[in-house]
Amino acid sequence: MQPEGLLIVISAPSGAGKTTLCRGLTQRFPALQESISYTTRKPRAGEQDGVDYHFVSESVFRHMVAEHAFIEWAEVHGNLYGTALATIEAARQKGVDILLDIDCQGARSLKQRGVDGLFVFVVPPSMAELRHRLESRSSDTSEVIERRIVRATEEIRESRWYDYIVINDRLDEAQDLLAAIVTAARATTGRMLARVGKMFDI
Amino acid sequence: MQPEGLLIVISAPSGAGKTTLCRGLTQRFPALQESISYTTRKPRAGEQDGVDYHFVSESVFRHMVAEHAFIEWAEVHGNLYGTALATIEAARQKGVDILLDIDCQGARSLKQRGVDGLFVFVVPPSMAELRHRLESRSSDTSEVIERRIVRATEEIRESRWYDYIVINDRLDEAQDLLAAIVTAARATTGRMLARVGKMFDI
Repeated sequence: MQPEGLLIVISAPSGAGKTTLCRGLTQRFPALQESISYTTRKPRAGEQDGVDYHFVSESVFRHMVAEHAFIEWAEVHGNLYGTALATIEAARQKGVDILLDIDCQGARSLKQRGVDGLFVFVVPPSMAELRHRLESRSSDTSEVIERRIVRATEEIRESRWYDYIVINDRLDEAQDLLAAIVTAARATTGRMLARVGKMFDI
Repeated sequence: MQPEGLLIVISAPSGAGKTTLCRGLTQRFPALQESISYTTRKPRAGEQDGVDYHFVSESVFRHMVAEHAFIEWAEVHGNLYGTALATIEAARQKGVDILLDIDCQGARSLKQRGVDGLFVFVVPPSMAELRHRLESRSSDTSEVIERRIVRATEEIRESRWYDYIVINDRLDEAQDLLAAIVTAARATTGRMLARVGKMFDI
């Protein structure tokens, strides 16, 4: 009777504040689980298989790539990281809501596979503010910042096919809006109908 | 650049608590306007034309009926009351969000005319609770209550084509959910895209 868990897909250009918003969302909805990635990296002290990551060998990972198991995957510092659709769907079938922080390309791949998700795009309040935020980080060279800004414009163009657009101007307001989007999504008729049918024997 | 106002259409069986929820919603969103009905009733002291009602003559009203101007209309104690689509659309075009408390038949008429609205159906937590609420009002005879209960089941069947279903068990939770639905609806990509396009010159 329990409906399938929601899949909340969040994308944003670098510097829009997506990581902070996602952290706030999981604090507000403790039952919401962040999607667990596969990696060929060795577990660090305290990391648990199936909790922090699914730790696999490179041959298993490559096999999964060949079988199109990943929505997206990448090599970072010699290690492979990937997001597998099957693990997300398995969790959803148990009624678990999943949060997936993913770039536009990965999100588009999900959309193209017809995955029923709640696609949310986060934008900064302006390009000037994005630049300011990226410069305040002070960890990036000006060249990297310029590249991120060019990329941001390209990414924001992708927002047109998402379900919702959240402008992250004031963090608390953006956080409230994101929470409202998740709350509302839980009450759509598609999710409620079986329950209502049972409640009223109709 | 401002998007069209939302049209929030709320239906519920008698006793589900719709009136209280609608009142709470307009308190929370002061810019939200309740749809103004047409009536042939004479204005009471303090009532303003175009604010409380559109006061019209019976011949004007009948003319509007003939021209299918009303989504719904009814005769109550010898006076005619009707909801006109054109007045709702005129308000929306000015960016005003409209709340329309209307029965399933009227809502269905809107849906069939292809009106872009947010259709929300409110249900009681159970038939037993609905009966309890109707009996506590003590204003209705048991015959009237039975009729309302039979009607409620028929109406709840209509919930299947609404966008959202809100179970009004704890009033504060239902109120929060309704507010979240309205908040989320304001951030859909369809409503945000023009603004985002202008913000980022894309």
